[in-house]
Amino acid sequence: MPYRAPADEFQFILDKVVDFGGLSDIERFSDVDLDVAAAILAEAAKLASDVIAPLDRGGDQLGATLESGAVKTSPGFADGFATLAKGGWIGMLAAPESGGMGLPLSVATAVNDMLSGACLSLSLNPLMSQGQIEALEHHASDEIKALYLPKLMDGTWCGTMNLTESGAGSDVGALRSKATRNSDGTYSITGQKIFITWGDSDFAENICHLVLARLPDGVEGTKGISLFMVPKIIPNADGSLGEANAVSVVSLEHKLGIHGSPTCVMDYNEAKGWLIGREHEGIKCMFTMMNNARLGVAAQGVGVAEAATQRALSYAQDRVQGVPLAGESGAICDHADVRRMLATMRAETFVARSIALACGVALDMALDDADQAAKGAFLIPIAKAFGTDIGHEVAQMGVQVHGGMGYIEETGAAQYARDARITSIYEGTNGIQAMDLVSRKLNDGGDAAFAILDEIESFAEAARGHMPALAKEVWSAAETLREGVEAMIALPLNDRFAGAVPFLRAFARVLGGHYHLKAAIAEKDEGKRTKLAAFYMRRLLPEHGALLAQARLGAADLYAFSMDELSTG
Amino acid sequence: MPYRAPADEFQFILDKVVDFGGLSDIERFSDVDLDVAAAILAEAAKLASDVIAPLDRGGDQLGATLESGAVKTSPGFADGFATLAKGGWIGMLAAPESGGMGLPLSVATAVNDMLSGACLSLSLNPLMSQGQIEALEHHASDEIKALYLPKLMDGTWCGTMNLTESGAGSDVGALRSKATRNSDGTYSITGQKIFITWGDSDFAENICHLVLARLPDGVEGTKGISLFMVPKIIPNADGSLGEANAVSVVSLEHKLGIHGSPTCVMDYNEAKGWLIGREHEGIKCMFTMMNNARLGVAAQGVGVAEAATQRALSYAQDRVQGVPLAGESGAICDHADVRRMLATMRAETFVARSIALACGVALDMALDDADQAAKGAFLIPIAKAFGTDIGHEVAQMGVQVHGGMGYIEETGAAQYARDARITSIYEGTNGIQAMDLVSRKLNDGGDAAFAILDEIESFAEAARGHMPALAKEVWSAAETLREGVEAMIALPLNDRFAGAVPFLRAFARVLGGHYHLKAAIAEKDEGKRTKLAAFYMRRLLPEHGALLAQARLGAADLYAFSMDELSTG
Repeated sequence: MPYRAPADEFQFILDKVVDFGGLSDIERFSDVDLDVAAAILAEAAKLASDVIAPLDRGGDQLGATLESGAVKTSPGFADGFATLAKGGWIGMLAAPESGGMGLPLSVATAVNDMLSGACLSLSLNPLMSQGQIEALEHHASDEIKALYLPKLMDGTWCGTMNLTESGAGSDVGALRSKATRNSDGTYSITGQKIFITWGDSDFAENICHLVLARLPDGVEGTKGISLFMVPKIIPNADGSLGEANAVSVVSLEHKLGIHGSPTCVMDYNEAKGWLIGREHEGIKCMFTMMNNARLGVAAQGVGVAEAATQRALSYAQDRVQGVPLAGESGAICDHADVRRMLATMRAETFVARSIALACGVALDMALDDADQAAKGAFLIPIAKAFGTDIGHEVAQMGVQVHGGMGYIEETGAAQYARDARITSIYEGTNGIQAMDLVSRKLNDGGDAAFAILDEIESFAEAARGHMPALAKEVWSAAETLREGVEAMIALPLNDRFAGAVPFLRAFARVLGGHYHLKAAIAEKDEGKRTKLAAFYMRRLLPEHGALLAQARLGAADLYAFSMDELSTG
Repeated sequence: MPYRAPADEFQFILDKVVDFGGLSDIERFSDVDLDVAAAILAEAAKLASDVIAPLDRGGDQLGATLESGAVKTSPGFADGFATLAKGGWIGMLAAPESGGMGLPLSVATAVNDMLSGACLSLSLNPLMSQGQIEALEHHASDEIKALYLPKLMDGTWCGTMNLTESGAGSDVGALRSKATRNSDGTYSITGQKIFITWGDSDFAENICHLVLARLPDGVEGTKGISLFMVPKIIPNADGSLGEANAVSVVSLEHKLGIHGSPTCVMDYNEAKGWLIGREHEGIKCMFTMMNNARLGVAAQGVGVAEAATQRALSYAQDRVQGVPLAGESGAICDHADVRRMLATMRAETFVARSIALACGVALDMALDDADQAAKGAFLIPIAKAFGTDIGHEVAQMGVQVHGGMGYIEETGAAQYARDARITSIYEGTNGIQAMDLVSRKLNDGGDAAFAILDEIESFAEAARGHMPALAKEVWSAAETLREGVEAMIALPLNDRFAGAVPFLRAFARVLGGHYHLKAAIAEKDEGKRTKLAAFYMRRLLPEHGALLAQARLGAADLYAFSMDELSTG
């Protein structure tokens, strides 16, 4: 069964689970009510299911290649991209005054989820442009905006982000790329960047690279870095293409997954660049779009989890093997352990998706509400790390449901696992997300965390009348988490870091209880939502206790070893 | 840093953790004391590190191919195999009277662990022959033994196992391959088999297929199946090669990993075969070697975990990124979360290895001890499922330690994850292992489980004087597990199945506590073993509580859903 984008699921979650209705109070989104969102989501779902999803397997099998210095893309990607661009999806987040759709981040997150589930490799291309558009909207001169934004939004040109170097990954401040000032106000950029997603393609007339580099008077570390627009071909003022810039693709990485997405090593050799924002403030400009980028990656994890779940459900209903002791189909979906896996996949996908959408709604509301801004900021690392971990875990469970067939590439189950694997790593590894959560995001003394817990407990209180058992589980998990947050805040920083990963997951677990409860309460008939909520409360929510205990253990025992002592023999 | 086989680690575990010394009471192993074992392990370690490991990356990059119906193997595999064969390792488990080394299974498990860590793809070839040799030793006529065993053991010929068909995977009784009787006492075999590991190669003069098929009077299901030897080339009585048999390789699978291991679709078209064992008793013959095969797969998981751990340790000590808040190296190994991952990898590898070796020792002792036989049988599914799950989990953690580099295939970290992934699936999926544990292996009313728990508790009691804190954790975990076993036995079968996977893992967790405690007690100076044991007791052992709670939840909520209700939208 091919992937079908679950438009109705987003509508349900937005409406019943993450309070999308609140957006109508925001001036900017006053005309995006749930009906409008539903229409947009239905349109995106059609695109994802019918146009983009069919490209996914081919993109894996015939990945991008480098031929004479130019990237050749996978079969059909150019047409798929053209359709996507024509629909206006690249500029979906941009303000209408710049020519964008002006969609709320929550709705865009749903669209990204669907496009990622359909074909992660291709979906990364418009996502890179989305980020670049946002950076330019906030920081570029009017001239640059006028020149670049329309062409990025209609897909004539594509955008990339150039941060990483071989010695500067997580630690971007360690970068060595250099910029010098030219007499005409432009800059010359020299250096090598790695892991550049969609660093080139054969369907964009121009590639617009946003590049971080250091001016001669830039200090060491992140505070001496500036951001430059370095186009592959230098455009004339009227938007026509001029001469080639000193930019080249050195090589493509040979990766575990996302083969359809060319990951480039880029070389800049005194390439001409234009400053974006102010000198030495490049990192600040990058941070503007960091939240959206991380939420975009969260959606990638969720999208792949959805696709993997659909495929496993389909296979498990067709495949007959052995005689299940219960159920009526006789197919492997009736073996208890297979059911356990399938229900886990569905329940976890719902949680990860709800966290991402709740985060999107909070960031949308943040436009005129500082508390929502704090909530959104708090949820970002959870959405990113949990969403992507679940993307990979669910995909691996999908492989297991397929048995031996899951190991055969043609089945497609393994591709989901390979593709999803990068999402736990890029845009800040999930370890770094967790460190962000327990340091910066708890620096308010826990205010943002406690506000979320208050919300969870209030809802659970109110739900006690209808669903006492489920509500009680959520309430008491929230209380345990509250103690966990207090304990975390009391710890020295490196002790927090030692417990960061289990702490983040525990927080996601409790959020999951909250969202499942909301879904169950929204249902009139104690149907599938209630059953899934009950499953989650029994089998997955309890994990939070052990995780929180782990989170509080401190760092001392981790440093008791020398590395030699961890080596064998 | 290239893989180094950890010979000393095996010696330590055999000696101090899994009571290898007990084997000297067994007539058959009276001359294999620890010194002899150590010498053998040192020899195998040299082979694995120096000869086999260098073939691993090439085997992934240039996997086996099918050219004009014949398999072409990866670069160097033929030479590697020749060296391995010359060392006598293919026949290491076979009785000396058949020309084998007569090694105990425990020692052979250590050797398989090393060979798998060095190059999983190549190691599968001698493992298949090992299994075939065992089957022939037990069930073949003297004539067949005389003809086949010497050539299988010296590697002139290689063996395969042909069970699976497209409609008969986990449910082998559903197979459709047919056998008919020929007038000369031979049989004609017709059918198609899939997932045949090393179904062909260019370094074996002959490939000897053991094939399951049904005679015309064979009943439906597993009881009507017979086992046949079907050689690729029909040998003359003197061992010289005669004419080609009607056996062909139809295609190779395109797999997630183990690219160096050709996984074949085999076609038998009235191929000539020789009965092994008695008619209709083929499954019984296969079961003879099932335990060893499953333990072999456990060793595969452990071997890959070891290799992944070594690689991650090495990378984490070299790579500098950001400023850790503690530690002295400045490399990423000093970030708390990276240390947490590295220590987890080492601690889990130790547990998985100890379970596999303890299982091997029990099966060795089983030769004249029914209690040990029961213990070995009980440990088999745990060794297989936990060992392989850990193989994959540790490999994935290794990818995460590598960050972005982990996603690049040249690094090799991702290959471990891809290669290990199959081990949780083949030789009975880990779900099936867990079902075996909670059904057949608890059918004794829990005797075998309780005997193991008695052993754990006695040791913990005795250890209380030296290491009260660690011993107390183990003792009380064992008590909780005892209740869990009792609860499991009281449940109806499908409720057990619903909790089988968490139950198995909980059992492994507690065994891990026991083995870590034994390692710590064996150490004079509260050094690395004690620190690792403390780490395990704090951070990993506690998982058993939540797992056992899950194991007891029954199946009802899993069947509350229709499959439609698990689909979205």
